[in-house]
Amino acid sequence: MSEVLSHLWEVIEERKRTLPPGSNTASLFAGGLPRLAQKVGEEAVETAIAALSESPERTVYEMADLFYHCLVLLAAKDLTFLELEAELARRFK
Amino acid sequence: MSEVLSHLWEVIEERKRTLPPGSNTASLFAGGLPRLAQKVGEEAVETAIAALSESPERTVYEMADLFYHCLVLLAAKDLTFLELEAELARRFK
Amino acid sequence: MSEVLSHLWEVIEERKRTLPPGSNTASLFAGGLPRLAQKVGEEAVETAIAALSESPERTVYEMADLFYHCLVLLAAKDLTFLELEAELARRFK
Amino acid sequence: MSEVLSHLWEVIEERKRTLPPGSNTASLFAGGLPRLAQKVGEEAVETAIAALSESPERTVYEMADLFYHCLVLLAAKDLTFLELEAELARRFK
Repeated sequence: MSEVLSHLWEVIEERKRTLPPGSNTASLFAGGLPRLAQKVGEEAVETAIAALSESPERTVYEMADLFYHCLVLLAAKDLTFLELEAELARRFK
Repeated sequence: MSEVLSHLWEVIEERKRTLPPGSNTASLFAGGLPRLAQKVGEEAVETAIAALSESPERTVYEMADLFYHCLVLLAAKDLTFLELEAELARRFK
Repeated sequence: MSEVLSHLWEVIEERKRTLPPGSNTASLFAGGLPRLAQKVGEEAVETAIAALSESPERTVYEMADLFYHCLVLLAAKDLTFLELEAELARRFK
Repeated sequence: MSEVLSHLWEVIEERKRTLPPGSNTASLFAGGLPRLAQKVGEEAVETAIAALSESPERTVYEMADLFYHCLVLLAAKDLTFLELEAELARRFK
């Protein structure tokens, strides 16, 4: 049962509302959409390289980074985790 | 409450065990790790471009593709969704 | 002495002016900037994967694709190969 | 007439032979193939984002970075700029 991503999503939405100083998530929102889109691309490249050439731990670590930056991008676009889940459910149910 | 990704993960693990003919997921496993790592990179590029230049629907669609291919890559590496969640929880709890 | 890239650049500029039907380069211009930017990202991912997991021939093949799509992107942005060379010369002279 | 890339290639090959301390190119060779492949993917993502959301100058700057890291990757694979040119010439002559 996965509640981790739902919880992470709530934290991200809360950071987006409150933009607490010192928060990494808040600084990603402040950086703007092009920077965030770039991070998603870069983290995926790191995940791909890790999967081919580095340890399992590193692969998990980079993929976690990728998922996190995806959710921040989703929030920055005023989209929701529910919409992402709905799209996944639509295809794989 | 997110059970969609957990469910998707179970479907992927089941496809990996049974490799049913005609399954897209099964053909991804058959294609091997380099091809899968490439897909993760490419889907992230598509997600980034969609977020900057296309519709919200397209962004969600591409990100769903990205999450799906990430989970297949995780399974292909004999890693688990639980490990990914643990890494995310470790950082954001 | 490298004249191949200069020649390729001239061909690309000529295709941009004349948009000949059936030309792959012309159809890339017609596809628009987001599609072209996406191709650059995807071809680089393929180059990276090839360098790690495939043959030397494949690496050269994918990198040639990447250089070609970069030059088309440059032309689509109304930039020139000369400007790219000037930037490279500035750093490495 | 493009001699900039040929000259850059010679510099890269020379750095590969002599690995001078303090050289950025030498440290890229020392970093190994996975790191270099990652850089190629990341610089392409930056080029794509710049082409869509940043200035023309930035696009040229990022593409110059991308070309440079491609040539270093080529050298790290014991391939040559001549082989890259031959592949480009084969397709576009």
